[in-house]
Amino acid sequence: MDGAGLARRVVEETATRAAELTRSTGVTPCLATVLVGEDPASVTYVRMKQARSAKAGILSRHVGLPATTTTAELVETITALSNDPTVHGILLQHPVGPHIDERAAFEAIAPGKDVDGVTMHSFAAMSFGLPGFVSCTPGGIMRLLEEYDVELAGKHAVVVGRSAILGKPAGMLLLAKDATVTYCHSRTANLSALVKEADIVVAAVGRPRLIRGEDIKPGAVVIDAGYNPGNVGDVDFDTARTRAGLITPVPGGVGPMTIAVLLAQTVEAAARQLGT
Amino acid sequence: MDGAGLARRVVEETATRAAELTRSTGVTPCLATVLVGEDPASVTYVRMKQARSAKAGILSRHVGLPATTTTAELVETITALSNDPTVHGILLQHPVGPHIDERAAFEAIAPGKDVDGVTMHSFAAMSFGLPGFVSCTPGGIMRLLEEYDVELAGKHAVVVGRSAILGKPAGMLLLAKDATVTYCHSRTANLSALVKEADIVVAAVGRPRLIRGEDIKPGAVVIDAGYNPGNVGDVDFDTARTRAGLITPVPGGVGPMTIAVLLAQTVEAAARQLGT
Repeated sequence: MDGAGLARRVVEETATRAAELTRSTGVTPCLATVLVGEDPASVTYVRMKQARSAKAGILSRHVGLPATTTTAELVETITALSNDPTVHGILLQHPVGPHIDERAAFEAIAPGKDVDGVTMHSFAAMSFGLPGFVSCTPGGIMRLLEEYDVELAGKHAVVVGRSAILGKPAGMLLLAKDATVTYCHSRTANLSALVKEADIVVAAVGRPRLIRGEDIKPGAVVIDAGYNPGNVGDVDFDTARTRAGLITPVPGGVGPMTIAVLLAQTVEAAARQLGT
Repeated sequence: MDGAGLARRVVEETATRAAELTRSTGVTPCLATVLVGEDPASVTYVRMKQARSAKAGILSRHVGLPATTTTAELVETITALSNDPTVHGILLQHPVGPHIDERAAFEAIAPGKDVDGVTMHSFAAMSFGLPGFVSCTPGGIMRLLEEYDVELAGKHAVVVGRSAILGKPAGMLLLAKDATVTYCHSRTANLSALVKEADIVVAAVGRPRLIRGEDIKPGAVVIDAGYNPGNVGDVDFDTARTRAGLITPVPGGVGPMTIAVLLAQTVEAAARQLGT
């Protein structure tokens, strides 16, 4: 499944919409990026998001905070962005460091600006099928499945991983589309047997090549949302591709879709806030 | 599994705690019950909750609204209760009638008074393992499993049903206890085969005797959260009991636990609001 190609199209559509919005309202959509500390991988991610934003006609407002920032200071910073009418979306780069209450920081993001889909409100909205912003990676997965006309109703989706921003919301979005959903994780007794039943596998656990080709049911759709050092996913691509009906590569699968959804949701947030 | 017996003990503990709280603070815990219209079953449920509250030393404040109440009026009523310091918990009796936006009404309940666990905040808190109030029926199920020392970590729990106040939160609470969780529902292709795999079955779908004994894995724990006309659960009790290791009856299983959790959470809410 060509996530990179689909992401390009989504970003092009987003750029067109951003340009129209800027023209009709005089306001350019703006994404605030908040980074605590100077973790090299996080710095790279944030720069990449800013560069993609610029290409799509979205302004970036970067807030870099020292690694010593307290929870209260971070909450205050994010609250100010939530209240700032010139900011339409807010991204807090994860992780924020162990001394910070990340949940408190996330919750300071106004639901209407939660374009990364990390708040409790957004999670519940995804779970209940209510309007709101989705977590970007699960949202990107759903967009890929839609693009490839993957039937979900009545199919068995096995989600490996249960993080708050990836596994859990991915399962809830699949459930909302009438899939039967199984959540597996590090404590699951017989992962291999459960994956073998899956019509759709979502690997979102961060363990290199955990899912082997021999466990893929022939014809199954395999979504690899893992990203491990050395450009390796959670799925053993070479063995899985021979059995899967559809499969996402790493890189070039889910990854590009994540940023595409972030940008699309930022423009959507701006449109709603600007009342268009 | 003797839900009625455990519920009696939980209510006794709750009554003791309520009495201590009243003695030490001079304030008696108060549960507001809100009922829209005069649906006979809803009237009965609310009266039962009030009677149990009284026995546990919890005040009831009943707000009965006509069936013609609008969403805006209901939201206003609930918001006033959320802001009223003499009310510690709020229960909006479900269902509220098709012309009302039930979600908007639920969301008017302050998270700290959401003793029925129906808000988006409470759902996300359950899902993320954060402090908060649980949905009462799933909370009652978890308390029963704990009481009977049912091991959950690594076990396969199959939840049949995906409602916002029962199936979905039950699955999330089981997942938080490290169970592998499968959500089945009306669109699930092969329910029987999936139930056969379950170490723990939670039936929460409202279809009389949907789960048959032949589908129960020998020794499995069967929780019947269904309640259908004629005191019939979602599980065919007579055939399932011969294979299950543990099973809840209907009535006398999950039902009494639901109210017990409601009362316990009301007293907990009062204790938190009174700063004890």
